[in-house]
Order: sequence, then structure tokens, then C-alpha cells
Amino acid sequence: MQTEIDTARVLSGLRTLARHGATGRGVTRPALSADDMAARQWLAEQMREAGLQVSIDAVGNVYGRSPGVQRAVLVGSHVDSVPNGGWLDGAMGVIYALETARAWLSQHAQQPVGIDVIAFSDEEGRYLSCLGSRSFCHALDGTSLDTLTHAGLRFTDAVRQAGLADRDSAHFDPVRHVAYVEAHIEQGPRLEQAGLDLGIVTGIAGMTRYQVSFAGRADHAGTTPMSMRQDAALAAFDFALSCERALREAAGPDSVWNFGALSLQPGAANVVARRAELTVEFRDLAQPVMQAMEAALLRTVASHDGQRQVRVSAQRQNTLPPAMMDDALQSLLTDKAVQRGASHMAMHSGAIHDAMLLARHVPTAMLFVPSIGGRSHCPEEDTAAHHIALGAQVFCDAVCEAALQAGRHGLSHEQAPDIRTA
Amino acid sequence: MQTEIDTARVLSGLRTLARHGATGRGVTRPALSADDMAARQWLAEQMREAGLQVSIDAVGNVYGRSPGVQRAVLVGSHVDSVPNGGWLDGAMGVIYALETARAWLSQHAQQPVGIDVIAFSDEEGRYLSCLGSRSFCHALDGTSLDTLTHAGLRFTDAVRQAGLADRDSAHFDPVRHVAYVEAHIEQGPRLEQAGLDLGIVTGIAGMTRYQVSFAGRADHAGTTPMSMRQDAALAAFDFALSCERALREAAGPDSVWNFGALSLQPGAANVVARRAELTVEFRDLAQPVMQAMEAALLRTVASHDGQRQVRVSAQRQNTLPPAMMDDALQSLLTDKAVQRGASHMAMHSGAIHDAMLLARHVPTAMLFVPSIGGRSHCPEEDTAAHHIALGAQVFCDAVCEAALQAGRHGLSHEQAPDIRTA
Repeated sequence: MQTEIDTARVLSGLRTLARHGATGRGVTRPALSADDMAARQWLAEQMREAGLQVSIDAVGNVYGRSPGVQRAVLVGSHVDSVPNGGWLDGAMGVIYALETARAWLSQHAQQPVGIDVIAFSDEEGRYLSCLGSRSFCHALDGTSLDTLTHAGLRFTDAVRQAGLADRDSAHFDPVRHVAYVEAHIEQGPRLEQAGLDLGIVTGIAGMTRYQVSFAGRADHAGTTPMSMRQDAALAAFDFALSCERALREAAGPDSVWNFGALSLQPGAANVVARRAELTVEFRDLAQPVMQAMEAALLRTVASHDGQRQVRVSAQRQNTLPPAMMDDALQSLLTDKAVQRGASHMAMHSGAIHDAMLLARHVPTAMLFVPSIGGRSHCPEEDTAAHHIALGAQVFCDAVCEAALQAGRHGLSHEQAPDIRTA
Repeated sequence: MQTEIDTARVLSGLRTLARHGATGRGVTRPALSADDMAARQWLAEQMREAGLQVSIDAVGNVYGRSPGVQRAVLVGSHVDSVPNGGWLDGAMGVIYALETARAWLSQHAQQPVGIDVIAFSDEEGRYLSCLGSRSFCHALDGTSLDTLTHAGLRFTDAVRQAGLADRDSAHFDPVRHVAYVEAHIEQGPRLEQAGLDLGIVTGIAGMTRYQVSFAGRADHAGTTPMSMRQDAALAAFDFALSCERALREAAGPDSVWNFGALSLQPGAANVVARRAELTVEFRDLAQPVMQAMEAALLRTVASHDGQRQVRVSAQRQNTLPPAMMDDALQSLLTDKAVQRGASHMAMHSGAIHDAMLLARHVPTAMLFVPSIGGRSHCPEEDTAAHHIALGAQVFCDAVCEAALQAGRHGLSHEQAPDIRTA
């Protein structure tokens, strides 16, 4: 069966949401900022009008529950953005979820399994990447919220300024939540290059990030003979290129890695660098490949330590293991794409999503729409209107079908093999 | 003959000067700042008390002329410092010059050739390295003072705030100035390692500085396949290591080079670097070696342009050709060191000094004292008190002897082969 949505309402909802923190063509809506909170309040009001029971929790998650049901398919994404980000990253998945709940409540109100909508807080990591979904899934991994800061602002103070102090936290409920489905822009060039409408996500690459530190000595670059230097800059350049070779050897065909940030101290043309700090990040869909890449990085640290008389050390900053999407939900998304005439392909996600956290607990799926030019995290981020509309319809069809199936079987997801393994 | 100085007055003068802009054990006295100007006013007063005719010129140079003479040996250095710099860099040479003028005026007041003292402005390059001596020597090389800025402050506004607007500029006078002699801390480790008291400078290495720019494309580091990236960071690392090899091949045994500053844009762990800016600086005493190193750098730019799909370009930011010190003045310094029982060696300067500018016009010499641990441009910069005192006495002996010789010959420096080539 199909569940019709109002695609004009999807597009107008996206445009209204984009007014919060509008920055040129894009948005600046960092987590818990005034603009982010205004967007969340607006969203909560939309959810209430749709008939959901809404709360904003202790970290900023906006959670709208279907009334009168014990179980629900959870759908959503996030509304926070990076500074000078685009209008669709996160926002599109939330508006899809809202529209799907509206359609469901108007067309399937008597079903035993409902649709819950969530807009997670701080997916972009102003304080901690996927902070909202980590909190929701009890997966803060020992990170104390009291220790998080951004540019001198403590997370706990940001929560207080946002008016969320003393609120309860919303949490994943293994009895209630039978599945999680999230739509998102691709944030890469593959769908556009393939000329396809939609991507059915097979899994989300894991990500590990290290900070590698190089401790040399500051010296006058005119008066210190080359042989007496402890040059942290050249040591860092050496390391990065060796590390790139080592990662390439350990990598799979779809692995990626990046050396996106390097700072030199004191950073003056005429002073030998005393210290260098380099970030190394790598991603792959297969945990064994992730482990091999991590071992390659650590071997490179060990072999470079002491070269050029510079000490090299590495500290892991962050890690998220790969997450596989549910096969039955992938099939459902594929079937619905075919029914709506959408061209599509299976693909993995190189970007991190809240779905990574949910996938540890419940059958999870993601639907991608193309990003024009592969651009994202910038004001130019965009998706063709017909792709936005087509994605919203296929998403709604699949989510409603999943809820109907769960209702027919009368089972919690832990006893619902048709959804997880069909 | 010998001219006795008051070494206690040298040390107390240095300590008094170091109160201006004191920062812990060091000083912060950037050119034309309030502390720099207060130091210059204090210095002008000291010069007046010594009997010199003093003016502070349009760029901040403090110039004290010996009265009643048509010709003079010019002596001095600078009093500005880098931020968080040391108490001796520049300051010591100025206090030596002041003490030498005092001794001269009290012991040789009737001589036909005098001693002029100068404290140049902005040797450290807050606005332009050796700005004061460039201005003094008509060597701004087309640089308009109107275009210079530092951290948003225009040089012309800094001059106005310093109360120097509408002043005249002091200039090198080829009839008056028969020689230039400057004392300075070594700012390197060689004298200390050799266990010697003084360095007689043979020449000052030339310095050329380039900014090398890498233009790539910002992409999401999770979603963009490795083959599609235009990674400015890895391109910069590649370039720097190739450039180091090329410079080493072109270099002489005493050449030095440095990659002290690199910035990546946007500089985020999860974004492929869109742009990298790298400074490359190299120095040598021989102009042909400098030319060979510059050619090596430019060949590396050409060969790397387009690698990793990144455009590479280079722009020369600054260049100062090597400057050779006058043989006769070197001999005079050596003789005076021997007479005072100071151990010494001939050495070149890897650091830039105002003497480079003067050496284009007049016989010039420099005397170095050891830097403890080779440290400089930091609060730890220091020199043993007995080295400071011994250096001051040898400096005074040599400068007074040069003035006496010039007086005996009754010649301008252009007809004084004994000073330049003996």
C-alpha cells in the first residue's frame, strides 16, 4: 500500500525551518544556540499540530510520540547545523519524519503501531558529535556532559541558557521502538554522478580520529645549524606522508582518510617549529579494516618517534564503529522506490549519522537523496526539488509499511524476524 | 690606545631599558607601541645627557649626533622587540653605543671625527623587517609606508599615535658617516659551544622568504572518494619535503632553510583542506648559493603544480642579499679583543641585522657576544654579565680607534682604504 504525502508542505516546511539562523543561502544553527532552540520550538509546535505528544529533553532532543500506542517506528534526524552550513543537512530528514507522521496519523490512526518523530541534538558535534542520539541510546561511553565545552562555553551552561536545565532525558525504549529510519542528503557526489534519484544505505562507515603530536624545539631559523634542529614541522610532514602510505596499504577499496588540521607553534616564518598538532581521521564500513588502519597509524607513530630528534605521540580523540543497516528495511525502501518509479542504488554512507547509534539497538535504515555537486556543510548545499519530493514520498511509503507490518505481526522488534532478516 | 668604559653603567642601563615593556624576565616592545616609544624617549634623554644632539625621526629612529664634527662613526642597533622577546636583542647594541659615545665625548672631545648613536625602528619587522634602517638608507625598495599594516593597524596610524606625524626622516649621510659598527647577541649556540667570549662577524647571510599557496577543494572527508579529492594539505606536505631535498642539493655547508608557518583552510578534521599557505625561508652568505636555492624552490613549485589536482603558486615576500663586513674593521675588532684578553672567533651571522642595510653604503662591522643556550626571541634570552661587560669594552675600544684613525687620515670613508681593505 501507499501513503500519500503533501510534497508542497514538505518543501514549504523546509523553507520555513531554514529561516532560523539563515546565513545567505545557508544556515548557521549550532546546537543549543538561540537559532537552534527557536528551530526546535517551531518544530515542537509543528509536531503538536500533527497530533504528537511532544517534549524537548535535557540535551535538546525534540521527541514527538504517537498517542495511544505501545509501539512505534522511530523516524527523524537533527536540526542543528555546522557554522555556515546548508539548509538540508539534518533538516530534510526531520521534515520528512514530520510529514510521514502527519500522513500516518491522518490515514492510519487506528493502527496498533505508531510513528514517533525525533530531532536529535548536536549531531554536528559542537560539543560532541551525535550528542543527542548518544544520550538517547545511553551511549555517552563515559563522556561526562559536565566536561564538554565549545569556545569557552560549557555544555551545561548552554543547556541552562537554552532553558533546558532540570529536564528529563528521553531514551530509546526497547519495547516501544521497533525500528529507526532516517532520510538524509548524500553529502557526496556518487548519486549525482550515477544519475540516480535515491540511495538505499547498506551501512555507515566507522570513523576513528587521532591527534598526533610532535614535540621539537623552537630555534632561530637563521642562526641554528640544520644539524642541531628539532623541527616539528618537517617531522609532521614526514609523518603524514608515511601515514598516508601505511593507511593506503591497510585500506579497503572504499576506505577514506584525511589530514584536515595541522597547527604549528609558534608558527612564524623565521622560527623552527617547536610543536605540531596533526589530526588524522579514517573511515571504513568493515571493522577489521578499521582495526588494520588503526594499527598502521600506530606503527607509523612508533617508527617516526625520535626521527629528526622530534618526539611523536598519538591520542585517540573519537571513534564510532561501523553500523550495518537492516536488510529487511533496505528491501522495503527498495520496493517502495521501485513502486514510485525512483531510480536507485545501494550505497554506504561515508558520513556519520545518528542512525549509527540507533543501529546498535534496533533494525535501522537510511535513505539518501542526491547532493548537487556533492556539496554539503556549506551554503551551496542543495538538492533538486523533485528529488526532495520523491525521497519524501518513498520514505513515507516505507516507514508506513514497516509500521503496518509490525502491527500485523503484533510483535516487538525483538521477535519480528520479517523486519530484521527477511 | 684604549678607552675605558663604565661596565656597571652598561649593565644598569640595560636593566633600566628592560623595564619598558617588561614581560616576566623578557620584554614585549613591538615597534611604535607605547612601551617602545617610552623606551625611545628614555634613550633620547640618556643621549642628550651624554652630550649628543638628539632627534626621533618620522619612523621612530632615535638619532644622536656628536656635536661640532663633520664626520662620525655611526654605532647602534634597535630597541624594539618581538612579542615575548628577550631583554638583550637590539637593546644591548644600543646601550653599548650609548656608553661608547659617553666615553668618547669625555675622553676624546677634541677629535675631528665623532661618534653618532642610532636606535633603529622596527628591526623585528612588526610592519617591515629593518624598517628603520631601510628608511635611513633610502632602501624601502618601492615599499610604500602607507601600505604597511600590522593586525589591522596601519603603520601611518601607529606613527601618528606615537606622536611622530610630520617629523623629518633621518638619513645616511655619505659625507658624515665613515663607518657603522653594531654589537649584538649571537642568537645562536656557536660561541657557547666553542667556549669563546666574542664573535667577529665576517658577513650576514642573505634571506629570502616565499609564501607558497596550494589551491585545492574543500570536500566532506567521509563521503568524497580518495580519487576525487583535491587535497591541499597533502599537496603542501609533499611539496615541503621535495623542496627540502631540492634546497639541500642547492645549498652550501652553512645554508639554512625553514618551513615555519603552515595554515590549512578550513582546518577541520573532517573536511579535506581547500587551501594551504606555507612559508619557506632560506639563508646563505653567498649570493650565488641564494640564487641556486631560489631556483631550486621555483623548480619544485613548477614540478608540483597540478599534482594531486592542486594548483601550486609561489610569491616572494621578502629578500635581503648577503652583506659582507669590512675587513679592516674586522681586524680592528680582533686586535681589540686580543688586547682585552677576550677569546674570539670569526663567524657569519645567520640572523638579519640593521648592519645589512648600512653595509651597502659604508664600511660596516658587527661584534657578537654569546647567547646562553643559544636562546633568543624568548624571555629566557640571556648573556653572562662578564660577557656583556667584556663585549662593551672591546666594542668601545674598536669604535674609538676607528674614529681616531679616520680623524688622523682626514679622509671621508670613500678615500680611506685603510679602514675598508687593510
